[in-house]
Amino acid sequence: MEKKSIGVFDSGLGGLTAVKQLLKVLPNENIVYFGDTGRVPYGNRSNNTIKKYALQDAKFLLSHNVKLVIAACGTVSSVAGDLHSSIGVPYTGVVNPTVYTAIRTTKNNRIGVIGTSATIASHSYKTRIKEENPNIKVFEQDCPLFVPLVENGFIDKNDPIVRLTVERYLNILKENDIDTLILGCTHYPILKDAIGDVMGNGVTLIDSGMETAYYTKKILKRENLLAEDNQQGQCQFFVSDTPDNFEKVAEIFLGRNMEHSATQINIEKY
Amino acid sequence: MEKKSIGVFDSGLGGLTAVKQLLKVLPNENIVYFGDTGRVPYGNRSNNTIKKYALQDAKFLLSHNVKLVIAACGTVSSVAGDLHSSIGVPYTGVVNPTVYTAIRTTKNNRIGVIGTSATIASHSYKTRIKEENPNIKVFEQDCPLFVPLVENGFIDKNDPIVRLTVERYLNILKENDIDTLILGCTHYPILKDAIGDVMGNGVTLIDSGMETAYYTKKILKRENLLAEDNQQGQCQFFVSDTPDNFEKVAEIFLGRNMEHSATQINIEKY
Repeated sequence: MEKKSIGVFDSGLGGLTAVKQLLKVLPNENIVYFGDTGRVPYGNRSNNTIKKYALQDAKFLLSHNVKLVIAACGTVSSVAGDLHSSIGVPYTGVVNPTVYTAIRTTKNNRIGVIGTSATIASHSYKTRIKEENPNIKVFEQDCPLFVPLVENGFIDKNDPIVRLTVERYLNILKENDIDTLILGCTHYPILKDAIGDVMGNGVTLIDSGMETAYYTKKILKRENLLAEDNQQGQCQFFVSDTPDNFEKVAEIFLGRNMEHSATQINIEKY
Repeated sequence: MEKKSIGVFDSGLGGLTAVKQLLKVLPNENIVYFGDTGRVPYGNRSNNTIKKYALQDAKFLLSHNVKLVIAACGTVSSVAGDLHSSIGVPYTGVVNPTVYTAIRTTKNNRIGVIGTSATIASHSYKTRIKEENPNIKVFEQDCPLFVPLVENGFIDKNDPIVRLTVERYLNILKENDIDTLILGCTHYPILKDAIGDVMGNGVTLIDSGMETAYYTKKILKRENLLAEDNQQGQCQFFVSDTPDNFEKVAEIFLGRNMEHSATQINIEKY
């Protein structure tokens, strides 16, 4: 019987930073990735639109023999939290795994959260943290220019445009004396160096992609769904717009040469 | 008989800078505006996707009794130049009107063009200029961060992030000794002050929205379609995502208080 896959979707290609971590943590698993490049970005869309898109994305993955679905997208994880009820396989967004680690990490009970406008407006991270521990103070900041910065190659921490933009958004968080900062958008690990420099050594950055990869391993173990062979997993990539720039952009997010190209599909059919 | 309208569409709300000019140049005309906010931005999508979207946008406007259609979108005007063949009323994009004025303006026959990546990759402005006058040298530069800057309120010419980003993109154009610069994206007039400061007094900025408004008046006159009454025209606004933020954002682009809100429609039906 063919090895079942882990399904990963995102509004675009940012979710590949989660795939990068999955490849490290679960190297034997097959991965099917769908990036909704034809309808990116989700971050400034209405909640109803985001929920509709997320369900279509999950349905596409389910048509590819997946045993678990990951919404590697802070916006979807924040807005479409009830997605698990509509699909018949284990599901995780990036919010829960990230929140659990942030709570274990903070020592002064002051956590910062950065994300797209939709993620921050949903208060999803803050709400989950407060449910787990009402004593923790949570400080939220949307950083709507970070995604365009990353996607247009403004990622060098020594670039004054990068530095000034990161400072503009994060200075207010610094004043709040946080010791833990959740990178609540899968694009943000690409700016980790710049964010770390601005926040300083006293602040631990929590990468939602990395935490989601570890959490996925736990779920697969618990549900007895881990790949049983020792063969390296295969990756398949699908997008909803033409895949012309896929290899170039994917390399930024995956941090390695792409051996695969992407296949275009019509997501409106799902 | 009810007064027919001018139909204006854009991938989002940037086209409202053209509406602002239409209100000045043709105050008696009714205007129906459609902003495809559910599928914005077009600038990084494939040509086939852009053409499909543009035809749907035009069809929606045609269902609203319009006598002329304007694609107030540099990307559509550049990529979907054959749109006029699919609709039964006069049509203009922003490329032709802007090119005619730029050619009349330049004295040293050196014109710069800035726009989204799709607009610049299409070479639409350059091609049309060369068709009109092969002796003119054209220098092109895409500025993919300008739209996110504008949409996130980074528009003050004294903001160092704005200044540095404008300099980053335009310094190379300055070296080419141009005397005329086409703002080939309807968002860019919002950054006019910053762009003007960086380019200096010797460079005339050509606003595609303004030129398109004047050109529209010419077409309506020629086709005997000008509004014949002296009553102030009415505006109707439609969008494809929820109109929650419409009034706030529209005020940036229109430069006046909004008396109207927008109505959401399902563009996929057209």
